[in-house]
Amino acid sequence: MRVPELSTLSIDVTNHIAKVALNRPGKANSMNAAMWDELEVCFKWLDSEPEVRVVILYGEGKHFCAGIDLAMFGDLANTDAAEAARRAEMLRQKILSLQGNLSAIEQCRKPVLAAIHYTCIGGGIDMIACCDMRYCTADAYFSIKEIDIGMTADVGTLQRLPYIIGDGQMRELAYTGRTVAADEALSLGLVNQVYQDREQMLAAVTEIASNIAAKSPLAVRGTKEMLLYSRDHSVQDSLNYMATWNAGMLSMSDVFATAEATAKGDVPGYDD
Amino acid sequence: MRVPELSTLSIDVTNHIAKVALNRPGKANSMNAAMWDELEVCFKWLDSEPEVRVVILYGEGKHFCAGIDLAMFGDLANTDAAEAARRAEMLRQKILSLQGNLSAIEQCRKPVLAAIHYTCIGGGIDMIACCDMRYCTADAYFSIKEIDIGMTADVGTLQRLPYIIGDGQMRELAYTGRTVAADEALSLGLVNQVYQDREQMLAAVTEIASNIAAKSPLAVRGTKEMLLYSRDHSVQDSLNYMATWNAGMLSMSDVFATAEATAKGDVPGYDD
Amino acid sequence: MRVPELSTLSIDVTNHIAKVALNRPGKANSMNAAMWDELEVCFKWLDSEPEVRVVILYGEGKHFCAGIDLAMFGDLANTDAAEAARRAEMLRQKILSLQGNLSAIEQCRKPVLAAIHYTCIGGGIDMIACCDMRYCTADAYFSIKEIDIGMTADVGTLQRLPYIIGDGQMRELAYTGRTVAADEALSLGLVNQVYQDREQMLAAVTEIASNIAAKSPLAVRGTKEMLLYSRDHSVQDSLNYMATWNAGMLSMSDVFATAEATAKGDVPGYDD
Amino acid sequence: MRVPELSTLSIDVTNHIAKVALNRPGKANSMNAAMWDELEVCFKWLDSEPEVRVVILYGEGKHFCAGIDLAMFGDLANTDAAEAARRAEMLRQKILSLQGNLSAIEQCRKPVLAAIHYTCIGGGIDMIACCDMRYCTADAYFSIKEIDIGMTADVGTLQRLPYIIGDGQMRELAYTGRTVAADEALSLGLVNQVYQDREQMLAAVTEIASNIAAKSPLAVRGTKEMLLYSRDHSVQDSLNYMATWNAGMLSMSDVFATAEATAKGDVPGYDD
Amino acid sequence: MRVPELSTLSIDVTNHIAKVALNRPGKANSMNAAMWDELEVCFKWLDSEPEVRVVILYGEGKHFCAGIDLAMFGDLANTDAAEAARRAEMLRQKILSLQGNLSAIEQCRKPVLAAIHYTCIGGGIDMIACCDMRYCTADAYFSIKEIDIGMTADVGTLQRLPYIIGDGQMRELAYTGRTVAADEALSLGLVNQVYQDREQMLAAVTEIASNIAAKSPLAVRGTKEMLLYSRDHSVQDSLNYMATWNAGMLSMSDVFATAEATAKGDVPGYDD
Amino acid sequence: MRVPELSTLSIDVTNHIAKVALNRPGKANSMNAAMWDELEVCFKWLDSEPEVRVVILYGEGKHFCAGIDLAMFGDLANTDAAEAARRAEMLRQKILSLQGNLSAIEQCRKPVLAAIHYTCIGGGIDMIACCDMRYCTADAYFSIKEIDIGMTADVGTLQRLPYIIGDGQMRELAYTGRTVAADEALSLGLVNQVYQDREQMLAAVTEIASNIAAKSPLAVRGTKEMLLYSRDHSVQDSLNYMATWNAGMLSMSDVFATAEATAKGDVPGYDD
Repeated sequence: MRVPELSTLSIDVTNHIAKVALNRPGKANSMNAAMWDELEVCFKWLDSEPEVRVVILYGEGKHFCAGIDLAMFGDLANTDAAEAARRAEMLRQKILSLQGNLSAIEQCRKPVLAAIHYTCIGGGIDMIACCDMRYCTADAYFSIKEIDIGMTADVGTLQRLPYIIGDGQMRELAYTGRTVAADEALSLGLVNQVYQDREQMLAAVTEIASNIAAKSPLAVRGTKEMLLYSRDHSVQDSLNYMATWNAGMLSMSDVFATAEATAKGDVPGYDD
Repeated sequence: MRVPELSTLSIDVTNHIAKVALNRPGKANSMNAAMWDELEVCFKWLDSEPEVRVVILYGEGKHFCAGIDLAMFGDLANTDAAEAARRAEMLRQKILSLQGNLSAIEQCRKPVLAAIHYTCIGGGIDMIACCDMRYCTADAYFSIKEIDIGMTADVGTLQRLPYIIGDGQMRELAYTGRTVAADEALSLGLVNQVYQDREQMLAAVTEIASNIAAKSPLAVRGTKEMLLYSRDHSVQDSLNYMATWNAGMLSMSDVFATAEATAKGDVPGYDD
Repeated sequence: MRVPELSTLSIDVTNHIAKVALNRPGKANSMNAAMWDELEVCFKWLDSEPEVRVVILYGEGKHFCAGIDLAMFGDLANTDAAEAARRAEMLRQKILSLQGNLSAIEQCRKPVLAAIHYTCIGGGIDMIACCDMRYCTADAYFSIKEIDIGMTADVGTLQRLPYIIGDGQMRELAYTGRTVAADEALSLGLVNQVYQDREQMLAAVTEIASNIAAKSPLAVRGTKEMLLYSRDHSVQDSLNYMATWNAGMLSMSDVFATAEATAKGDVPGYDD
Repeated sequence: MRVPELSTLSIDVTNHIAKVALNRPGKANSMNAAMWDELEVCFKWLDSEPEVRVVILYGEGKHFCAGIDLAMFGDLANTDAAEAARRAEMLRQKILSLQGNLSAIEQCRKPVLAAIHYTCIGGGIDMIACCDMRYCTADAYFSIKEIDIGMTADVGTLQRLPYIIGDGQMRELAYTGRTVAADEALSLGLVNQVYQDREQMLAAVTEIASNIAAKSPLAVRGTKEMLLYSRDHSVQDSLNYMATWNAGMLSMSDVFATAEATAKGDVPGYDD
Repeated sequence: MRVPELSTLSIDVTNHIAKVALNRPGKANSMNAAMWDELEVCFKWLDSEPEVRVVILYGEGKHFCAGIDLAMFGDLANTDAAEAARRAEMLRQKILSLQGNLSAIEQCRKPVLAAIHYTCIGGGIDMIACCDMRYCTADAYFSIKEIDIGMTADVGTLQRLPYIIGDGQMRELAYTGRTVAADEALSLGLVNQVYQDREQMLAAVTEIASNIAAKSPLAVRGTKEMLLYSRDHSVQDSLNYMATWNAGMLSMSDVFATAEATAKGDVPGYDD
Repeated sequence: MRVPELSTLSIDVTNHIAKVALNRPGKANSMNAAMWDELEVCFKWLDSEPEVRVVILYGEGKHFCAGIDLAMFGDLANTDAAEAARRAEMLRQKILSLQGNLSAIEQCRKPVLAAIHYTCIGGGIDMIACCDMRYCTADAYFSIKEIDIGMTADVGTLQRLPYIIGDGQMRELAYTGRTVAADEALSLGLVNQVYQDREQMLAAVTEIASNIAAKSPLAVRGTKEMLLYSRDHSVQDSLNYMATWNAGMLSMSDVFATAEATAKGDVPGYDD
């Protein structure tokens, strides 16, 4: 296993759990051009590395993530194309590219658990909306900040968050950009659990991750694929896809290994 | 700006906020033929009037809305067509037309905030399900009343409410028509907030509306379009649509105006 | 009315309410091959029997349902086909068949209320996800157990539950298989209400069922069809389908019977 | 029956057949702002007028239709909005409006037969793609002209024509704008039949229209609705929609009237 | 192998080819209640019988199929339900059931080749639209006859035929019910080939069937599933489904058997 | 412009036209692992290189393309995974990757014209189904060869070809793998034109390409995007997408440049 070396993210893999830290603490982990690209590199690697079964995404320093680095807007505004329609096409290509950077988190076949402390705003929301589950500290706060800088959020929040929180609050948060504290985040379903502080949170989330890492990795990957597929298809289509999937990918050897281990009072061990 | 004069609705526009009142207080704001038509006229106007950036929908008198005026059923039953299949076709056209009246609320590109006091039943639920957010008083109560008059609700409740409240309670409310009080409405996500009384509610909702009216109107309209689009499409399709939208409609001038104003400690001002 | 006689289910129909009991108490109501088949037989019969207007599904004995009878995996593993790809095709056909067994619950045109006590795990979750509403006792507990036996759940949980509970918790439950107690089930929206014990629950659920049985059965069936349709289609498509449905199936005679009865202070009576 | 008086279209209704002529012969029937609006007015009226059972759309003068009047581009370019993103939003609204003008042809519940002579280019193709069938004279020629004026065709050709002609030729015609003569149009399936000249064509198309006008109008309207629905939905969805439609709108009285008339050697007569 | 004995269909299985004959020659093979039911029984059996790899559907007697037996309309009209809306619901259930009878042809996993001579009208068109390919004699003629008896065709023609023939002619045939002769059927793509007479056709179609029966049956079944899936889904979805399918159901043993046989100049033999 | 150097493809760009040759003439241009990867590299580069406006794909040597190099099956069969379900997952990933290689042709925003001579079978069909148009020589022949090696075609033919040729013949070709000669390919719509020999074909296709290269490149790219989008979405969705697209990407400067040039009798010149 050769862990990629990245300038804005740090990666540690222990006991099948990859811990990925946003690592620009001096810049409140704001997302600059390098971080956007490296998120894609990182999660494509996590997807392909058999050793990794589950991922924790967290932040170094005081903030989880302050959103997009505003310096990036300069790039968006300055293009070589002199003509408006051609500039529009280039901007579309650029947005598609940024969306693709974050979609790599969702397309990683292993569950991704976001562990969020203090600030999580703007692009940070787009990012955690791509994760499987979200956990936070008592001092965490969230804001769909894009509306406050005069733009329609365009890299995932408006597309994915409505599946996570209710429609009524979703719209209020998107139109007003108002701040949501940890407790409200919990009651909205935005996070699964609130912990006292960052240390406690990381310990608890690591325990959940360990639990997942002990399951059949193939079954876990299948579960993620099915949940993503179900979100975007009818129940009938999803059932058919499920049957076709398990036709080849239901591992009888995992099922029997579990049965045998359980019978012996043992913990089953699985191949990656 | 020429505000339309309507017999069943009153409209006031101040500081970019349109306040639309259901205005048949003597009839508990029940929805007669005129009101159905005027809702469409009103919201098409609100959509097209640049001055308007956000809308509040509330009720005059004791009740928010007692639902469809039962006198309308007479019209549905009496038609010139002597033959059953032709009557069925005419009824289909009539229902499509009523649906279109309410869909104008959803298709209005500006956020619509429903401020609900006391009674909100039957057609009133269909109506608020078309709004972006819902707020109510402590004495408000809700009921999907259609089932109690022997019919399947057909102008939006069964189509839109499942995106707002959970599936399990949705079905119970639809099958039983039972009354939901303000507190339960809040915990179901049917409303975003409960206020002590009508006056307090209108003040609070006006403040939320003011907050929205101060954002870039173009970004707010884009946000509404994206949330509606996402509801009905896959995440992949929604991301692509978003990129195509912002290619032309991301206003760099709004983004830079915000940046500049913020830098000066100023409030940014936007064109409509 | 000729009630089918089944070996794993018992059926009682009184006052338009069918009570269906999982009836393998000695085996914790685990689902063996007979039960899978009989669930389909039973719910197709309930769908077609005019006398039945609403269904309660509950369990005899100590447990509601311990999930699939593990003996069934033997059948899945042993097939006559010597070749891997042909075994895969046979497994796909088998899974489609089991899915069809449970889908009969959803396709039954009458509302199905699950009354759950104590154990509800694995296949039991797939089963209650096909029901319209879920109610439970204070000692009930739930677990998406499939992940613990090394498999991706394939007969409905991953396809239907995301419409019932929020996305974030859905994934945690599916990846970890952790146990959810009654109170959490309520706050997640997995159940609509928690009752002290089985007796109290059955009484309360019977009352809800009686309430539904007193409505126009045709309107209730239409409501179920619309909610299922809306789940899988865009709002625009759902509105059009609704209008087309009510064109023929809005019963003016039910509406007028209700009006007349209400005017007299009477309870309306409906044809099946 | 009060036929609308329009400046750019003439309408004649005889024997249940409406003949609508594009009537700007001095301008090669190019589509100016008035014509776009009047097409919508006209086809909404044709939809609602019970007397009308089938429509023929043809052109007065030398040409069927020379496409959009280029003067309209001036309007598109000049807007009050000073800012690029706001101009883009206005342009989007304008295009949606032009699309709606033509979609009225498709949404008219009665079959629309286009009878095309000589020139049919640009917007003329968008228009005939909304019709049910197309017939032409031997001297007719067709061109997706938009590409030749530097734009992507945006009012229906690229959306509807691929259902009418094969994908391979569709793309060639769209990318090159090359001219298609009558014979090739026939072999591509763009037209159903080629006639010697305009007079012969109008006579033949009128005969086809008479044939349709003699059928049960309700069954014809149902047929059009089903064909449009099938184009945009899966076969399974379309079958279900069909069953729901005919539940109310299969006219047994029309079926029996036909049987009776046929038995007597008579021609059946239907209500509108 | 136990071939089902049916009153309206005859079945012969030789060399992996099942020949199914419509067998009411005295009634022009019109489809009575028994035939509708038996078509479903027959094709479900053909689907499940491993011996069968391909099916030929043809007619005994003078006609291929004269469509629905008009006596069935009596049943549709007479129901016990006194009330219009309930009659509508019963009619919907009836139509869904008839659709299901024919859909069994499409859902049979083995290719079905229709061999058509002389008359094929009304329900006969619905039936052949469910088949994979269609072949006919020079004297064959086709008509979407439903419009001539005052009804909208409701068991498959309007849903499936548009994928087989071009949109423009599809609509003309559906609105007018006009007769299509063999040559036009060929040029429309309605049939793949025209043969001189019934004998020659049956010989030629049997040869095509033999060709198919000699391929890997698993690969043929996969091909049919993919073509049906592609018809109803986006290309992106279809590619993903294909990959998931072949993950389990690509038979390396068939591929290697072919390679080996080919190397030896042999004909490969496959398991069913 | 830096043209990529590839081992299995050669690329020449002249006058905005890129000519890409399959360049393994000694192996009948069969697709080995390198060629699959390089097709993706090549078409991603063509997509991004502004100089390129249109692409011609043709073959060096005697054959256009003999399909997948059978040596690749060895890789598919041999994997490190010992367990069947894990091998299935790896195979799924491999197929998705091969599909992605070819989808790069479709996703290239510039039109791709396939010029086919002599052999085009198996993977060659998958490849040309990704192109915009297809042209061939009189001696060309086509075969969906996969069925003859015991497999279901899985990299695009079954997903894309049904949009190009009629359903009835599509299925016959897929089930039988029979050879289609140039003339039949033309009448099926598989190719747009047949030319006498390779030289004549390349000259003619280059002329079509030159014609396209002279149009506004932005309008051409928009046209391709719309045709792809329309294939996979409803007409209503496609119209809305079109309007949103042109809001930003309708180039008024291209339209006016065309008008001006035309007025002067000039050929308009466009930016890339």
